[in-house]
This record gives sequence, C-alpha cells and structure tokens, in this order.
Amino acid sequence: MPNTHAGQTDRVGHTPFVDLTPPGDPVAHRYGEPGGTGGTILPPTIELQLNHRSVRKFLTEPVSDAQIDLVITAAQSASQSSNLQVWSVVAVRDDDRKRRISAAIGRQSYVEDSSVFLVWVADFRRAANVAEAQGASAETLGYIENTLVTAVDSGIAAQNALLAAESLGLGGVFVGALRSNPAAIIQELGLPDYTFPLFGVALGYPDPSERAGIKPRLPRTAVLHQERYDPTAWLAAAEVYEDRLQEYFAEHGRDNYSWADTLTKRISTVDGLHGRDSIRGALEAQGFASE
Amino acid sequence: MPNTHAGQTDRVGHTPFVDLTPPGDPVAHRYGEPGGTGGTILPPTIELQLNHRSVRKFLTEPVSDAQIDLVITAAQSASQSSNLQVWSVVAVRDDDRKRRISAAIGRQSYVEDSSVFLVWVADFRRAANVAEAQGASAETLGYIENTLVTAVDSGIAAQNALLAAESLGLGGVFVGALRSNPAAIIQELGLPDYTFPLFGVALGYPDPSERAGIKPRLPRTAVLHQERYDPTAWLAAAEVYEDRLQEYFAEHGRDNYSWADTLTKRISTVDGLHGRDSIRGALEAQGFASE
Repeated sequence: MPNTHAGQTDRVGHTPFVDLTPPGDPVAHRYGEPGGTGGTILPPTIELQLNHRSVRKFLTEPVSDAQIDLVITAAQSASQSSNLQVWSVVAVRDDDRKRRISAAIGRQSYVEDSSVFLVWVADFRRAANVAEAQGASAETLGYIENTLVTAVDSGIAAQNALLAAESLGLGGVFVGALRSNPAAIIQELGLPDYTFPLFGVALGYPDPSERAGIKPRLPRTAVLHQERYDPTAWLAAAEVYEDRLQEYFAEHGRDNYSWADTLTKRISTVDGLHGRDSIRGALEAQGFASE
Repeated sequence: MPNTHAGQTDRVGHTPFVDLTPPGDPVAHRYGEPGGTGGTILPPTIELQLNHRSVRKFLTEPVSDAQIDLVITAAQSASQSSNLQVWSVVAVRDDDRKRRISAAIGRQSYVEDSSVFLVWVADFRRAANVAEAQGASAETLGYIENTLVTAVDSGIAAQNALLAAESLGLGGVFVGALRSNPAAIIQELGLPDYTFPLFGVALGYPDPSERAGIKPRLPRTAVLHQERYDPTAWLAAAEVYEDRLQEYFAEHGRDNYSWADTLTKRISTVDGLHGRDSIRGALEAQGFASE
C-alpha cells in the first residue's frame, strides 16, 4: 500500500519525504508476522504511526525553524495534567554544543549528526515563579507525584512532536542517554532549579542509506489485558516474539540476538543502568523526587 | 479549513466522526490567537494533533474490539527505551468495574460513561519474570531510573493510542486521578509486584452536546528555548496567556479564571496534590522508586 503522505506538500514547502513504507499489512508488519497482501485502509495518522522506525542517520539538509515551531505546537497541543504545562524544550543546533552533549553521554553520533537536537526538560520552574510571585511557596515540588506528572506529560508531548516531524518527512530518535550524565546537560544548557533534562529527540531528514527497520513488538496479547491483569498471558506471546525478533536482527546483520538475554542484562545488575543508578541524587539536587 | 479526515471510512467500518474542527488557522487557534482566515495546508496528522480536545461526554455507541486492537498496535508502534516494552494496558468495559474505579478516585463521570477505560500500567513484571527464568535477579527495578523509563514510555505510547483513537472518530481524556488511590486500582485489577497504575485513558464516541473546546496553550516562546534555557523568556508570554485563557473560560461559562491562582493552589500546598503526596509509599510497595 502506498504511503498516503508521500508526495504531499508540507506547510513549509520542504522536500516530500522518501516513501520507505513496506508493502503488505502494516499491522502484521509491526508484529513481525508474515506479510499479508495489503489493501487494508487505515487513517493516514495510524498508517504513519504503524510505520514508525527510529532514524539515526541524517542527511545534511537542515530542519527549518518553521518546521521546529510546528513540531512544538503539535507537542503543546497534546493533553497534559491539569493545564500545568510543566515541560520545556531546548533546541540545540550549534555543532560544538551538540558535540559536547554527545561526548558527555558516551558519543552518540545521531546527536552530533542531527539537524536539531531537542532536549526535553521537566520544568516546574515557571510554576514555581508563578507561586512565588503570589507570595506562596513551591512546597509540593519535591513530591515524586510531580516527577511522574512531568515525565508522563513530556512523553505525551514528545511523541506528538516526533510524529508531527515524521508527517513532515523528517525522522528522529529518542535519546534516553541524557540521563546517564544529567549534571553535564544541566550545566551545558544552564538549567535552573526545578528543571531536569529527561531525554532528547534528535531530528533531521532521514538518510535512506540507513535502511532503518520496523522493529517487531511483543504480540498484542502480551500487553493488552481484559478487565483484570493476567500474569500468564504474555508467556506464549514471548516465545513467538523471540523468534520474530531474532529473524529481524538476522535480517539486519546481527545473529544470535536474544531478547531474554538483553532484558536480563539490563535489569539484573546495576552496571546495566549505565550510570543511571545515581539519578536520584541528580533529581533531588534540582528539586525533584525527594519526598 | 475542512477536516481532511471527515467522512473517511475507517478500518473497521464505523461511523465517520463529527467534524468539530473550527474554521481558521489551527496554529493560531491552539494559542487562542485571533482567527486567521484558514487555507494553511497541514499534513492530516498535524491537523488532527492541533485540533485535539479532551472529550469527557460520550455517546452510548460502543468502541469495537477491532478499534481497541488497532489503538494498542499504534501505542506499541511508538518508540520506547531499549526495547524493554515495560507497560501494559488493562481494558475495562464492565460497568460495575468502571463504577468501582470511578468511586475509588472521587467519582469521575467520564470513567463510568466511557465505552472502554484503558488503565495504563507501568509493567516490569514481564522483565522480572524473564530475568528470574534465567536465574538472575531483578536487582535494579527499585531504581528511580526505571520508574522514569516506564512513565515516559507510557506517556509516549498512550499519546499514540489517543491520537489513533481520534483518527478513528473517537475521543477521550487522560485520567491522572488514578494516582490518588493506587491501592484500590491495584486490588481491582489484580496488579502484581513490579506493576503500577500510572493513568487511565477513557475512550468513546464524543457526545457533540459537550462542545469540548480547544484550550489555549502558553505561547510557544514560553516553552521553546534556543541553545540554552532562558529563565525570563516566558514572562511576557505568561501575561498574554492569562488574558487568552480567561477569554476561553469566559466563553465556556466560567468567569474570573486565573491560571496563576490555579497553578499556585496546585503546587503550594500538599492539599493541592489530592492525596498523591502518599504515592511514594505506594510505588515502593510495588517495587518502584525505592532507590
């Protein structure tokens, strides 16, 4: 099925993006299931969502300011808690700054090579200023509830941003590695109290030579429960998944991949956290998650 | 500008949704700015995003299982950290269960009246099982880093879900109030260790009698910083915003609204947290955020 966005003129008149949509049923494809013959009609937004892949190689063509503005408006348009509006974005284009950020988090080429690197910042600073201007304190900001609010709301907003970017022919990738060295990011961007760098989004025009793939997800039955949580439903699904994911990685040049091994390494030792075991202290130093 | 989705047949053959898109420039409208004459061409996905409004009144027409499946596939298709896949959804349709959940969180009519109430669950239970099956422990799960991972990833996924639902003609609202009484939700849904109910998403066909509005956001300059965080950029923006938001609320039958007052009440006293000051204990009891 052709991608219905392909060839469409975008708001700011940039090049339409290359259509990398695979043939066949995009639902089957998302789960790594055998083909399907296509022909399913999906709303264009769902088609775009199902065909998402992270992009880590970018062309040199820049993302325009008008595109960034529109992407941020899309992010702001999403739902958020109690109209608090507790996130900010720092848009980093400067090559030296991108290189310093990349170096601080273990060299991520897609940070350096992106046209713009959006740093998503948990931001209760505005709210604290408003309260202080009224002679009130920002007494509750240390409660972990507020950390959850800004983390969830930032995720919601940033997904709108990335999807909006994709609908403009751009591509990108979330960068959680910022949390491996928050102190460096805080210093580099001048982040005050009650702000914290949560993650980044690297954006640019996709370099088609990357051939970024659609990584299969766990079968839906592993994550969708009916009425009550079913602790065993995912077991059969996980077995199917190992096979599909191994096949995907083999196709992308990586043999003997194991989801179970990868997962175990990540959660069973503190080393797997890549330095993020010290994040509580960094959060507390900025005014978060102390209570 | 007509909504480009209107009248489109959806995947599962349901009624096309009512076109509530306001005339004029959707970017201006999102910020509560005076009109614009329309005619701007946006990709359909961005148009849908910019026209988002939370829906709290629903028709009785049910959301189909096929629609829910597609919405969850859209959620799974979004980016997530290190392929961990650390969220689950419990789909609640049973009227009695919806009523009990609503009662537990202070009576939210949109939970009871929704066709389906999706409870978004932070879920490291699967990952812990995988590690344990390999003879490893789930040693790191208590670190707050993992709480951030599942909160951000759940926000990312749930926004894809809600937007997918909107593209199918459905509407909905995020329900953070679940966190005011996590113990009741944990019991009601049978949530095991290493899971935690983060928020809900109430879905259904919008009741047009609600006339749900597009609530203005802070001007973009308040949230988008260039290269480094600018702690003063939002000040002028906030003044403009108070006026626009007051105008919006006056149009929706609520005079004398003040963003500054609302924000201050929310963050300056523990009462403003509506019981969520005790959430740390609830998280720790489920295996989260102890370190």
